[in-house]
Amino acid sequence: MNTDPLRELARLVRYYILTSSTRAGSGHPSSSLSATELMCCLLFGGVLRYDPERPGLPNNDRLIFSKGHASPLFYALWATAGRLTEDDLSRMRTFDSPLQGHPVASTPFAEAATGSLGQGLSIGVGMALNAKYVDKLPYRTFVLLGDSEMAEGSQYEALQSAAHYNLDNLVGVLDVNRLGQRGQTMYGHDLQAYAARVGAFGWETILVQDGHDPAQVLEAYGRAVSAGRPAMIIARTLKGKGVSVMEDKEGWHGKTLAPDQLDAALAEIGPVDKSLRGVIAPPEDLAPTKEASAAVAQPSYPPGKAVSTRKAYGNALARLIPGHPEMVVLDAEVSNSTYAESVKAVRPERFFEMYVAEQNMVGAALGLSRRGKKPCVSTFAAFFTRACDQIRMSRYSDADILYCGSHAGVSIGEDGPSQMGLEDLAMFRAILGSVVLYPSDAMSAERLVEAALEHRGITYLRTTRGDTPILYGPEERFPIGGSKVLRQSGKDAATIVAAGITLHEALAAEEILAGRGVAVRVIDCYSVKPLDTAALEQAASQTGLLVIVEDHHAQGGLGEAVCAALAGSGTKVVTLAVRRMPRSGKPAQLLEYEGISREAIVAAVTSNL
Amino acid sequence: MNTDPLRELARLVRYYILTSSTRAGSGHPSSSLSATELMCCLLFGGVLRYDPERPGLPNNDRLIFSKGHASPLFYALWATAGRLTEDDLSRMRTFDSPLQGHPVASTPFAEAATGSLGQGLSIGVGMALNAKYVDKLPYRTFVLLGDSEMAEGSQYEALQSAAHYNLDNLVGVLDVNRLGQRGQTMYGHDLQAYAARVGAFGWETILVQDGHDPAQVLEAYGRAVSAGRPAMIIARTLKGKGVSVMEDKEGWHGKTLAPDQLDAALAEIGPVDKSLRGVIAPPEDLAPTKEASAAVAQPSYPPGKAVSTRKAYGNALARLIPGHPEMVVLDAEVSNSTYAESVKAVRPERFFEMYVAEQNMVGAALGLSRRGKKPCVSTFAAFFTRACDQIRMSRYSDADILYCGSHAGVSIGEDGPSQMGLEDLAMFRAILGSVVLYPSDAMSAERLVEAALEHRGITYLRTTRGDTPILYGPEERFPIGGSKVLRQSGKDAATIVAAGITLHEALAAEEILAGRGVAVRVIDCYSVKPLDTAALEQAASQTGLLVIVEDHHAQGGLGEAVCAALAGSGTKVVTLAVRRMPRSGKPAQLLEYEGISREAIVAAVTSNL
Repeated sequence: MNTDPLRELARLVRYYILTSSTRAGSGHPSSSLSATELMCCLLFGGVLRYDPERPGLPNNDRLIFSKGHASPLFYALWATAGRLTEDDLSRMRTFDSPLQGHPVASTPFAEAATGSLGQGLSIGVGMALNAKYVDKLPYRTFVLLGDSEMAEGSQYEALQSAAHYNLDNLVGVLDVNRLGQRGQTMYGHDLQAYAARVGAFGWETILVQDGHDPAQVLEAYGRAVSAGRPAMIIARTLKGKGVSVMEDKEGWHGKTLAPDQLDAALAEIGPVDKSLRGVIAPPEDLAPTKEASAAVAQPSYPPGKAVSTRKAYGNALARLIPGHPEMVVLDAEVSNSTYAESVKAVRPERFFEMYVAEQNMVGAALGLSRRGKKPCVSTFAAFFTRACDQIRMSRYSDADILYCGSHAGVSIGEDGPSQMGLEDLAMFRAILGSVVLYPSDAMSAERLVEAALEHRGITYLRTTRGDTPILYGPEERFPIGGSKVLRQSGKDAATIVAAGITLHEALAAEEILAGRGVAVRVIDCYSVKPLDTAALEQAASQTGLLVIVEDHHAQGGLGEAVCAALAGSGTKVVTLAVRRMPRSGKPAQLLEYEGISREAIVAAVTSNL
Repeated sequence: MNTDPLRELARLVRYYILTSSTRAGSGHPSSSLSATELMCCLLFGGVLRYDPERPGLPNNDRLIFSKGHASPLFYALWATAGRLTEDDLSRMRTFDSPLQGHPVASTPFAEAATGSLGQGLSIGVGMALNAKYVDKLPYRTFVLLGDSEMAEGSQYEALQSAAHYNLDNLVGVLDVNRLGQRGQTMYGHDLQAYAARVGAFGWETILVQDGHDPAQVLEAYGRAVSAGRPAMIIARTLKGKGVSVMEDKEGWHGKTLAPDQLDAALAEIGPVDKSLRGVIAPPEDLAPTKEASAAVAQPSYPPGKAVSTRKAYGNALARLIPGHPEMVVLDAEVSNSTYAESVKAVRPERFFEMYVAEQNMVGAALGLSRRGKKPCVSTFAAFFTRACDQIRMSRYSDADILYCGSHAGVSIGEDGPSQMGLEDLAMFRAILGSVVLYPSDAMSAERLVEAALEHRGITYLRTTRGDTPILYGPEERFPIGGSKVLRQSGKDAATIVAAGITLHEALAAEEILAGRGVAVRVIDCYSVKPLDTAALEQAASQTGLLVIVEDHHAQGGLGEAVCAALAGSGTKVVTLAVRRMPRSGKPAQLLEYEGISREAIVAAVTSNL
């Protein structure tokens, strides 16, 4: 193959990288230049099969820039493909431009938001899982990786997962440019160091001694796409390639050329022909076979029976999946605890065991979400903290995911603090636009799973380990943003606001108080975000004392949410939350120890009347 | 060597494991039985050098149970060593017992809290770094690992870090018992799969075909401690070994024997001699050479000069390290952005480059903290979310660590949301007993680093990317829990509460409002946790309107902290926070877009008067 046209195109891409980044005055040209040939060969060398007129085509190959800071290259490629204009590029990184500093969901042609390193490969795993096991389409997924980000453990989670699922449709392209942000990486240009590690995880590894030679790069792609297993191209490149002032030099990470340096650099690159267009190979026009949505049964629990909300989550998944062909279920090797395993009995092909690797689980879920699926992702509430960065980033990819965290709070008992979700409400509430739901019984848990499946966006469902009595009948509705008043009278002296395990403590406290002649209102605040502010305001004005009780640390959870919603109301608020070092013990002991038990509620009401 | 005594001791250990876990009615006997010989040989085979009378001895070898759920084994070992009684064991997992479900800091002989998988090896890296590079002591660190947890990416961060620092004093002991929580692990009993992967990261790998044969295990330890590089013993074991009802069988994770099953199991094990005592080899009685604490200079910044708080963090580290021999500095390959690099000029031997691997950085910092050091750990605020689980767990290890997150909020500008810390205050506030500090100028940043070094516990310091003018002179003091009133008059119509970048917007707003004849109070709320509630209450009662403004999402940050502190006061509160999808742009544009700019503050005050 004559690679001269690719060299011409690479020159034009370099021109766009340098001019756009100097214009912006910030960004990462050097990290873009190292991967220029790797990406030009992929897009314009006949490897990638993609219809730029229809980015949403189900069978398009997918390209993820895990090294999101190489965005100048990404935008330059699409300009060279004729899909962005030079004017678009000139506004890169400005407020109104869709070409942001790092790709986000709304970036043209971007498959996902990146910029926090070591996340793209997991997203690619999700897209490749979708192609191979869900949509059953022949599209391939390519992920451009930086060498610095190979230090992230999440990469090895993705590698093992891809090998486990034999994702022969996934290709990593590792741009070994030797230099990180503040100096050399751990392995410099030692390609073998990367090959040994990636290969040990079961991947085909393909070394490219000169990642700027289109012939070598094209040959590597040929081997990668036919490897019969996940493949990693490991290419020796030079950071800043083609611009002598920065080529292979330290101190140029995230730094743009000054205008006079730009002139010299462009002279080095030589004349470019802006009329050139890179041509991308077309994909087959295939779409997945749509499974018809079947009717689903209604949940049924005898009133008063004790069933854990985690069990109800599993029941709901199994019940609802026939009606939701877009559902996929992922779990981190605890599906017998979260009860996600329930879905295996009815739809085993839509259950993905992700082992004890929460970061990759969330990343893969995002990849599936970006391909139109609705992932239901579960582990212990505490262990979602392991994927906090991936959850945070999933928002910028416009994720449509239900996260379910089980074993919330000290009420898990003997296993102790390492297994207790006590920061999960704070974590998920702090995600922009998230929905946070916390059911108290199995019936509301079932309904809230339904609500989460209907909702488009990030929903967090918090479930409880222990069995709790059924409170609601099948007729009750649980809209997002709602609440339930479970006890009230015309003479309520206080309102107890609770959710999950503490709601049952609140109900018990209400009984004790009633026995003492003190009437209180009890609100099931199952929608922690958005909050039912109207109901809380009404209760506050009618009863005059609010006691909020939550099995969570005092920061960022239900208590602060209510305080913020009612700020300025003048209603006295007492928040009972986990404020002492959690430990092992019986659930009831621990609720008492932390001051979130029925007795503690009674005391709080009594002493504040 | 005659291994009969070790076999006898192993039998006693099994007896304790089974009786204590059945008594507790919960816990992980099967996961304990698989590692019984591995640990008996370590402790009682002359490998571990440890003085049980003096657990704090600096030169004791260290043993970390990364698979913390094997706590019945851990406790049984110390009972066999004569350091716990059978009565102690019988109260395992009960409320008053120090023998919790998973080890925590207060557990006798535990080096760290574990139970969230895949964290022990990083803690071990920190302890081994301490031995080799800081304390310069010959103690070794051993880490017991489960096979399930090898799916966690954090393990590979620890492996690469240990190899990079050539930690020949670190030994991993991988208990390959084939079974995870809900079934077989990804690799079952394929020892080679683990060896290939661990070896690829530069470790010596030592296979043990029968991890229940003391002779084989002892030989492996001999090779491991003399490998001249970090070494991993990879041992084939059987989950539930020795108890036929559970041995190598699924369905026995986290499950104890019923009393009748226990009788049968004890009969299988055979008679035990409770008078036996396992003897641990003594360590050399060595202590590190204490570096004398030198006097430190005072910070000096010309009033009005613009210096970023991140730069001040670096300045403070370099200034203070001569006075704090316990300080060590760790950074995740962004030390030229966080300015942690400043310390390299004065104390390069106390700076540890941890590359782009935040989980291992935090874990290693914890290991150093547990060995009496004061780690100052930095990366972008956004990227601490990557280590949220490790940070959460560090609390249960009684960590003494300063975490510094730079590049807070949308005010970083063009790089966009992936790089913006917008959930960090929520994350760190939700840690029990944490201190959260957010300086607005370089002088207060310097003082708050001083305060954090004096404080024992977890402190989070949030720094800002852009330069901000110096507000304070060298005489100002910034106690934890304090605040500063920067503007006030006798006729303030409102109080603006801010910290960091928004404080400068607040000051600008105050000027604009003053020009319009509206006097407002401005409070620098540099101590986000604990909050200066008294000052806020006073301001609320005196000025009657509070406008809180923060460069952070609306949940879990300064706004909710203040709302919770002032709940019930009846003072009107308006919180300005990041509520729209963040994006790229100029810092001032983004503050305006999010409604946290000076103009937004002016509007909020004006419209709420």
